Amino acid sequence: MGYEYDEAIAVERISAGRYAADLEAGWKVGGGLNGGYLLAVIGNAIKFDLAEIGHHDPYTVTGYYLSPSVAGPATVSVRRIRQGRGTTTVAATLSQKAEDGTEVERITALATYGDLDRISGDIRTTATPPPLPPIDQCVLTSLAPPEIKAFVPMLDRFDMHVGPESTGLLTGKPSGNTYVQAWFELADGRPIDPIALLTVVDTLPPVTIEMGLPGWAPTLELTAHIRATPAPGPLRIRHESRNYAGGFFEEDCEVWDSAGRLVTQSRQLALAPLPPKPKPEVEE
Amino acid sequence: MGYEYDEAIAVERISAGRYAADLEAGWKVGGGLNGGYLLAVIGNAIKFDLAEIGHHDPYTVTGYYLSPSVAGPATVSVRRIRQGRGTTTVAATLSQKAEDGTEVERITALATYGDLDRISGDIRTTATPPPLPPIDQCVLTSLAPPEIKAFVPMLDRFDMHVGPESTGLLTGKPSGNTYVQAWFELADGRPIDPIALLTVVDTLPPVTIEMGLPGWAPTLELTAHIRATPAPGPLRIRHESRNYAGGFFEEDCEVWDSAGRLVTQSRQLALAPLPPKPKPEVEE
Repeated sequence: MGYEYDEAIAVERISAGRYAADLEAGWKVGGGLNGGYLLAVIGNAIKFDLAEIGHHDPYTVTGYYLSPSVAGPATVSVRRIRQGRGTTTVAATLSQKAEDGTEVERITALATYGDLDRISGDIRTTATPPPLPPIDQCVLTSLAPPEIKAFVPMLDRFDMHVGPESTGLLTGKPSGNTYVQAWFELADGRPIDPIALLTVVDTLPPVTIEMGLPGWAPTLELTAHIRATPAPGPLRIRHESRNYAGGFFEEDCEVWDSAGRLVTQSRQLALAPLPPKPKPEVEE
Repeated sequence: MGYEYDEAIAVERISAGRYAADLEAGWKVGGGLNGGYLLAVIGNAIKFDLAEIGHHDPYTVTGYYLSPSVAGPATVSVRRIRQGRGTTTVAATLSQKAEDGTEVERITALATYGDLDRISGDIRTTATPPPLPPIDQCVLTSLAPPEIKAFVPMLDRFDMHVGPESTGLLTGKPSGNTYVQAWFELADGRPIDPIALLTVVDTLPPVTIEMGLPGWAPTLELTAHIRATPAPGPLRIRHESRNYAGGFFEEDCEVWDSAGRLVTQSRQLALAPLPPKPKPEVEE
């Protein structure tokens, strides 16, 4: 039997450069579906499209988010812009049919793919992994109270153990920090490959929750640089914001594998959070 | 008389969504034109295109670099993807005619524009400006030796005063740091507006020079988030890399205005540097 994650991101070829997907309600957060999940659906269609030329790994993927996606059928279109020997750059869109039958673009994307196995081993990373205590001293986000999970159903899709200082989502008590860090695995045990990393980078609760600004934060733009295929085992992930201003904030996410390698860096520009509906009733 | 920078980024409408530009040889670096300069040409065409609906400021611009641009005629195409009340998202391409007359895409881009004057004043920036000494204690990069300037003619386009510890480009003696920081103004005194910020983020010498890896580093992808219109006066800029690995490295650039506001954050994914030709002869 397959993994639920693979089913959720599955695409089927309709015609040249066109792929059908069935977006999974389990990845809902607030009024839409998780941006990282959607980016992986797009990423999977691109991978499918470029497999024949051996460029099956994302090096960099950028999504501009146009309108909230809903569970159900979607179409991913992939157009090759430049096909080189080592890399191919594509434009891709994810669209859905509106109730009146018109096609609505949800996300427009650019990506450059190649083959991560073929890039050089010279590693001079100066960044350091997030200082997380062992998993058993962290807190599983799928144990969040029901009123939170009603707003963030996707919490059941992964085993995310947030650090003891990153529990604002669960307790309603913000730490005042501008970062959130956690251990991460998919709930179904599906190994994290470069496509799944496109999801991982957008799963942490918004840093704004720890800043005392409850609610989820819509992504305007997200770019992920996939720098290596992760070694098996739980990932350490952390995102941080340094510039909440003017109704927008950036989130920089780093993903570290079990071998201590920085496998992904992403940055997103998000809108300051909308208050959650229904508002969780938190005991102070 | 106009500013040379405005002439360099000028666009002229050809037809709906199509603009002509004349790329300026003065922005050469190595075998191509500077990626930030090119992004501003694209950004200027988008601004022109969206001015009628009042969305004249870039909030976020992403360029995927496909092939090196050359001085001379170019075409920028702008296609509106989603026009909203507050923002409009577009796809844009910069292309040039090859010698055989075929159109070659140099850069493909996505961008979301709005009106920076209309966004909220709530500022909670936690980042701090780069710790630069006063300009007169820094070193002007346009005083670089002729063999460097032959490779990087764009050094004459701006008055960049690098910090005393960021002079690897000029001296051939890398500091070992993974950052470069500097004061920045355009050489012609042209005020820095949101479009010019798209250039500013890509003007610092690659951090790899300070890491002892000489040569310029081709940009694969660059995303700039323009967060505010800068106050008049010199900018402080800094970029840093934390993950040189696998033949790629990221550069995160911050731009601070004279009022101490973080006006722009960018990140690029670049290819490990190619050795400069001709190789500068540096006395150790």
